[in-house]
Amino acid sequence: MRNGKDGIVERTLGELARLVGGELRGDSELRISGVAGLEEAKTNEISFVVGPKYVGKAHETKAGALIVPPKLKSLNKPLIITDNPYLAFAKILTFFAPKPHPPLGVSSEAHIGAEVKLGDSVSIQPNVYLGDCAVLGDRVTLHGGVYVGSEVCIGDDSIVYPNVTILDRCIIGNRVIIHSGSVVGSDGFGFAEDGSGYFKIPQIGIVQIDDDVEIGANCTIDRATMGKTWIQRGAKIDNLVQIAHNVVVGEDSIIIAQVGISGSTKIGKNVILAGQVGITGHLEIGDDVRVGAQSGIAKSIPSGQTVSGSPAISHRDWLKNCQILSRLPELRKKIISLEKRLAEIEQAISS
Amino acid sequence: MRNGKDGIVERTLGELARLVGGELRGDSELRISGVAGLEEAKTNEISFVVGPKYVGKAHETKAGALIVPPKLKSLNKPLIITDNPYLAFAKILTFFAPKPHPPLGVSSEAHIGAEVKLGDSVSIQPNVYLGDCAVLGDRVTLHGGVYVGSEVCIGDDSIVYPNVTILDRCIIGNRVIIHSGSVVGSDGFGFAEDGSGYFKIPQIGIVQIDDDVEIGANCTIDRATMGKTWIQRGAKIDNLVQIAHNVVVGEDSIIIAQVGISGSTKIGKNVILAGQVGITGHLEIGDDVRVGAQSGIAKSIPSGQTVSGSPAISHRDWLKNCQILSRLPELRKKIISLEKRLAEIEQAISS
Amino acid sequence: MRNGKDGIVERTLGELARLVGGELRGDSELRISGVAGLEEAKTNEISFVVGPKYVGKAHETKAGALIVPPKLKSLNKPLIITDNPYLAFAKILTFFAPKPHPPLGVSSEAHIGAEVKLGDSVSIQPNVYLGDCAVLGDRVTLHGGVYVGSEVCIGDDSIVYPNVTILDRCIIGNRVIIHSGSVVGSDGFGFAEDGSGYFKIPQIGIVQIDDDVEIGANCTIDRATMGKTWIQRGAKIDNLVQIAHNVVVGEDSIIIAQVGISGSTKIGKNVILAGQVGITGHLEIGDDVRVGAQSGIAKSIPSGQTVSGSPAISHRDWLKNCQILSRLPELRKKIISLEKRLAEIEQAISS
Repeated sequence: MRNGKDGIVERTLGELARLVGGELRGDSELRISGVAGLEEAKTNEISFVVGPKYVGKAHETKAGALIVPPKLKSLNKPLIITDNPYLAFAKILTFFAPKPHPPLGVSSEAHIGAEVKLGDSVSIQPNVYLGDCAVLGDRVTLHGGVYVGSEVCIGDDSIVYPNVTILDRCIIGNRVIIHSGSVVGSDGFGFAEDGSGYFKIPQIGIVQIDDDVEIGANCTIDRATMGKTWIQRGAKIDNLVQIAHNVVVGEDSIIIAQVGISGSTKIGKNVILAGQVGITGHLEIGDDVRVGAQSGIAKSIPSGQTVSGSPAISHRDWLKNCQILSRLPELRKKIISLEKRLAEIEQAISS
Repeated sequence: MRNGKDGIVERTLGELARLVGGELRGDSELRISGVAGLEEAKTNEISFVVGPKYVGKAHETKAGALIVPPKLKSLNKPLIITDNPYLAFAKILTFFAPKPHPPLGVSSEAHIGAEVKLGDSVSIQPNVYLGDCAVLGDRVTLHGGVYVGSEVCIGDDSIVYPNVTILDRCIIGNRVIIHSGSVVGSDGFGFAEDGSGYFKIPQIGIVQIDDDVEIGANCTIDRATMGKTWIQRGAKIDNLVQIAHNVVVGEDSIIIAQVGISGSTKIGKNVILAGQVGITGHLEIGDDVRVGAQSGIAKSIPSGQTVSGSPAISHRDWLKNCQILSRLPELRKKIISLEKRLAEIEQAISS
Repeated sequence: MRNGKDGIVERTLGELARLVGGELRGDSELRISGVAGLEEAKTNEISFVVGPKYVGKAHETKAGALIVPPKLKSLNKPLIITDNPYLAFAKILTFFAPKPHPPLGVSSEAHIGAEVKLGDSVSIQPNVYLGDCAVLGDRVTLHGGVYVGSEVCIGDDSIVYPNVTILDRCIIGNRVIIHSGSVVGSDGFGFAEDGSGYFKIPQIGIVQIDDDVEIGANCTIDRATMGKTWIQRGAKIDNLVQIAHNVVVGEDSIIIAQVGISGSTKIGKNVILAGQVGITGHLEIGDDVRVGAQSGIAKSIPSGQTVSGSPAISHRDWLKNCQILSRLPELRKKIISLEKRLAEIEQAISS
């Protein structure tokens, strides 16, 4: 790595090709100082083309080099050729991204509870509340306004963004990222009718978030009534998602913004729930299930299925239904016409 | 109550039966040290069976005793028999739940405004902002990061969880619980077109939350334009719910996660709104109305009705429609077949 | 302006008519001390009637005077007559609304980073975190619990309500209002599959919010992967709205509560998205488009269209479909009846 004359970090195209394990085509000494989209890239930046759909834009781009899949290796630019251009782009972008701050230590403007255990190189900003007996692993970052309750454990290298709340006794794994405003460990929603009103069912369980999970901004993940609400390894959750008490989200599942999952439902591995999906309680959603945006799920779904609609049906049937629905007025006219013609025939026969 | 040999709180089955007013069957001296679900319970714990559906699991449970309804009194375990096992479970769970902390007093790391009035035994954690002229009742708890605006009143025994915002002049009753990240008293959404853009309509009303209300995490309850947005006694609101300006939510109504209620709509008593329901403004939803998940309400609903769908219709009709919708392609084929057969007849007759 | 005997601010009806540029009918010296709805107004308050629909209530109101459109100028009350009574109401309400606090200066209980630049007459409350190199314009207000990251710029007269998070390098214009709990600049949701799981795509862009934008409570506006997520001049966004990375929201567009907009979608000018709408990524929504509540948008929409439904169709067709859907069981019965009658005819003919 060298710093260019104006202080910008530069790498050669050859270095970047090696970084992503790609095949180099063109000048290995070409200097690249950043990554950008095809339309925004400047001559000293690299861009990427994920497929033939973007070839038109690739011909017009000012980018100095491109990351492309093998089928586009004839593009007339310096190239890095790789089977997964999107991943290579992500890796190069990571390389050029601003580096995290060096550890800040513990701010004197933070509240640090009694008997906490702090790992090496933690960063605790001003206005943090760290409850009694909390345990932080190495290199944990708590940004300003974060509340960490008593007896919470947070693993190594996890980042908690500003104004997040993690309530008592919850367990957060390693390399977990929780974005601003999210709440982990609020009470599950449970009441028993007692004849005159509602008796609050205490929520004495916890939330457990395993390694490599990312939670978006302003999400709510309720603690279990008993036992745990459980987000398993590698799951990625977008913004404003509601996870009720005792839900389990399986490994590497993807939950897009504004989804709501009701109590005790179990989501399998590698599931994808698109935006604004709602799932009722006590269901089982199998591995590899895909659910279309805004769908409403009221029944368990076996592994491997793709469903859409509210109530959800197979995605294939839903597509058919959508087409028919758009022609409903036409169908209705056909029925009225059939009735008329049939009445004429009946009259002809009877007379 | 006795403490077991390892410090765990224990009660006898007889004591628990008296606690919930249930009938004891079996050894009244049996020691119980906790509550758990049928599948998780250990031999020193009690579990519960709400109905015949769970009898299979009840036969397999390791629980030392069960809370059951009268119709399941023949189960071969020590039993507490009661008409409402779920309520009895809730009461016993409350008994075993961790007790709240003793009052903490007022942290020196909190900001306390001028001319505030504080009741007895309040708990104000570090990083709280308490505005001028605010009034807190006895035993109020404000957790870290809570913002309480000027002239806000909060009644006795209310709990405000971390990072909640309550803005100027709002009124909170007794025994109210507000979970983390919720906002009470943000501006209602109101603008008047002035020919060149939007003129902001000032929102000078308040939010009033009556006794025994519980508000979930990351909810938004806007202040009234004039007058008040009003959450009445005993209403229970789940997470991520939007309540617009001048809405009234009636006593003991239940609002599940991610519901949105538009401005000036009035929700009656004992209403249940399932998850992700949307209601437009200026409507009246009568007492005891039930609304199915993801429904869209654009008309007022008389008391006692159950509705579903978007736009919502009677729940019974909606169920029928859902069945027909799943057979739409079949209906379409029938119509095409009818047309063909009719054309053949018409031709036969004309020839 | 005079203060009445009990300290209440009073204006004469004549002064108010001049304030809004309306025509006065009745006693110009009538003293008015506030604004209220028709049903709540007292004899010393003014109310407003936007159209003939409210004439009944206008006859019953106790208000001392009314703001009315020209077609209602025969109402038997002191009147201010104007083409836009709603705007006149908003202006008079603004006049009577509590005035903002005088500037508070910088609280010693706030955290102020290194090398910040503060404009004149700023107000920074306790428990604020202001990051290094942040720049605040004149008269900016940061309420308690606000987090402003490094290198953030906020323009003149902007108000940031409690517990808002604005992350590093985001740019906020003049006269912007951001309500409590909202998050500006959280990471966009982007991952590249790497064969064994997900590789996080760094989100190195920013959020830019232009002049006169208002953002509701508990919204989430993600930073761009590269470049910027952009909320343009005058746009108004309600509560709990999700704006994904690289979205553009055009000037003066209105986004109602709980809407979600997926990555890279561009919303035109003067668009209205009703509550709970969901829009998928990489679409173009033209100027002046209107989208009905709970609609699901999966295709780009040309300027000027009004659409509804999920998936959305033209609003006119959607209204027709809704009517037919409510009669689906009836249509199905007709088809069954047609089949029966046709079979009888076929039999009669064949025999």
